Amino acid sequence: MPRHRSPATPPRLTSRRLAEQLGLAQSTVSMALRDHPAINVETRRRVQERARGLGYMPDGIARAMRTGASRVLGFIAPKLGMSYFAEILEGVESGARERGYRCLIGQSQSNVARMADEVALLRSQRVDGLVLIPVNSEEGLELYADLTGKGLRFVVVDVPLAGFETEFVGPDNRGAGRLATQYLLGLGHRRIAWLRGYPRAANARLREQGYREALAKHRIRVDETLLAGDNFGVAAGEAAVEGLLRRNVRFTAIAASTDLQACGAIRVLHRDGFAVPGDVSVVGCSNLDFSALHTPAITSVDQKPGEVGRLAARRLIERIEGRASAPGSALVAPELVVRDSTARRAKRGPTEPRRSAGP
Amino acid sequence: MPRHRSPATPPRLTSRRLAEQLGLAQSTVSMALRDHPAINVETRRRVQERARGLGYMPDGIARAMRTGASRVLGFIAPKLGMSYFAEILEGVESGARERGYRCLIGQSQSNVARMADEVALLRSQRVDGLVLIPVNSEEGLELYADLTGKGLRFVVVDVPLAGFETEFVGPDNRGAGRLATQYLLGLGHRRIAWLRGYPRAANARLREQGYREALAKHRIRVDETLLAGDNFGVAAGEAAVEGLLRRNVRFTAIAASTDLQACGAIRVLHRDGFAVPGDVSVVGCSNLDFSALHTPAITSVDQKPGEVGRLAARRLIERIEGRASAPGSALVAPELVVRDSTARRAKRGPTEPRRSAGP
Repeated sequence: MPRHRSPATPPRLTSRRLAEQLGLAQSTVSMALRDHPAINVETRRRVQERARGLGYMPDGIARAMRTGASRVLGFIAPKLGMSYFAEILEGVESGARERGYRCLIGQSQSNVARMADEVALLRSQRVDGLVLIPVNSEEGLELYADLTGKGLRFVVVDVPLAGFETEFVGPDNRGAGRLATQYLLGLGHRRIAWLRGYPRAANARLREQGYREALAKHRIRVDETLLAGDNFGVAAGEAAVEGLLRRNVRFTAIAASTDLQACGAIRVLHRDGFAVPGDVSVVGCSNLDFSALHTPAITSVDQKPGEVGRLAARRLIERIEGRASAPGSALVAPELVVRDSTARRAKRGPTEPRRSAGP
Repeated sequence: MPRHRSPATPPRLTSRRLAEQLGLAQSTVSMALRDHPAINVETRRRVQERARGLGYMPDGIARAMRTGASRVLGFIAPKLGMSYFAEILEGVESGARERGYRCLIGQSQSNVARMADEVALLRSQRVDGLVLIPVNSEEGLELYADLTGKGLRFVVVDVPLAGFETEFVGPDNRGAGRLATQYLLGLGHRRIAWLRGYPRAANARLREQGYREALAKHRIRVDETLLAGDNFGVAAGEAAVEGLLRRNVRFTAIAASTDLQACGAIRVLHRDGFAVPGDVSVVGCSNLDFSALHTPAITSVDQKPGEVGRLAARRLIERIEGRASAPGSALVAPELVVRDSTARRAKRGPTEPRRSAGP
């Protein structure tokens, strides 16, 4: 029962033959194949592409032994099957690939011990650096401090690490809250309810801050009775809007921290006889797949997870290759996607939602 | 501008100290760390876990050089950001991790040249084997034949490779079509429309075959006028149902090849004044995230992509480790998820859909 196979020997072109074909000096080809920085990027790319096209396989493992650089990045997300994380991964892979890097992946299950285990496994494969969606906790901070102490390069994505200075790339959550609110203000809405997320989540707090900023910019005092909810799910959106209606809070629009909340909000409004967007406009955040398929299709702020991932990979590679500027944060600008759940505030009506005649 | 960093030296425990702590012979520990098959799996796992917990890092790269086995699998999907593929990847990663393997990833963009390029890159990292969502084409066949010739182990997932014998793990598409149709038959429906997928897609053909089998089992002759549509999207579902209604085809239920088609079907039915499920029951396939959030929530056949991925990783690893039985196919059984878009056929009415009184 052989456990370890001997590796199949790949067919090998010599660098001399490759040099003849490309009309380059053999030393140039050989250095380009070793990814030597003295050869310019375009030439390296051209040589490596031709080499791959001809079945020449630069041996990543041998190169890793020789140079200490594996040209492999690690990526760890809580769960890879969730489409938001999957889109970040797609971006990381694309960004890495553009520069000739590969991605090894892991799942933390939002658990620090598991995250530490994944990091150790990826390090044992000698990844050149890590892109991490962090687990935010005290123990998490120790882990990241430990990584820094060991000289491992990493970029934190999506959610910033509270209390720890490191390279960070994420969506502009504050900008997203601002964008959603500004859009509703532009449609003439003045009494805009805000559906909050989990109070300790940084992204939830930042989105709410954006809501407050947009109102302040329009010199509208924040009415705290318009804020409801405490997590990101559908049921939370339902409960928040039920609460607002029960307390007779007047509003003509809702800005939700997530599309799931927006979905819950629309359900409750419909159930109670309000038309969306006829009586109440609803805007969500994150632009999930289902938002376009919902009835009505949900206007949403796209957080561009693919771009977040791509940018994170690029910045990590710059750092690995010693070309990075000072470490810092980069935020990807959100984009509003207008669909059917929002409309101009009705001129005829009062600012309070009115019960419509029929569904 | 240093391009290649020297690798940070990880702290190393000696196998002697580890042996003392675990109360095992040093030779056992040392063999367990090398993953020697003479040491039983449980002991290997125990030693390796303790070692990792203590910050001992088995060096994957050095092991790969020594043994020719990297304990890394490659996974290539068309796009990683699509949630169905992301769920397969989540399963592959979990299945690999259970056995101490890591995953390197790639994206083919459904393009054979790109797939070949990804395979070459992953091979240069000396992956022990590949899990591939294939690109089905003539050129694709050459690529897979080439892989086989080079002795690379791979498992095809999701869609079988037409015209090529290899290890395959996928969802039971025929079973899914059968399950959806049987469920509607069980609710008393007899005139069940079938929304077809892209005619050349194997999964579409298999699902339709399942529909035909379920009807045959109930001794119902297939009425070809009930079959409509030619691809998997929302617009295709809309067009298919519009066509059926225009041609005055009578039906009390629709089985759609996908949830997207089901969504389109429901839209058209609502627009034309039919209640779902009051007048027409609709069942979808694939059980996407949005199906539970749709109004009405869509009854769907879950194809279990996570299980498909996990099983594929397991079978590939069995093959790599020389413990595989004869290569062949494994299909993951689908599961029906009943929601709000289906109901018993109304006893009062005729079998044809009737226009309901209100929206």
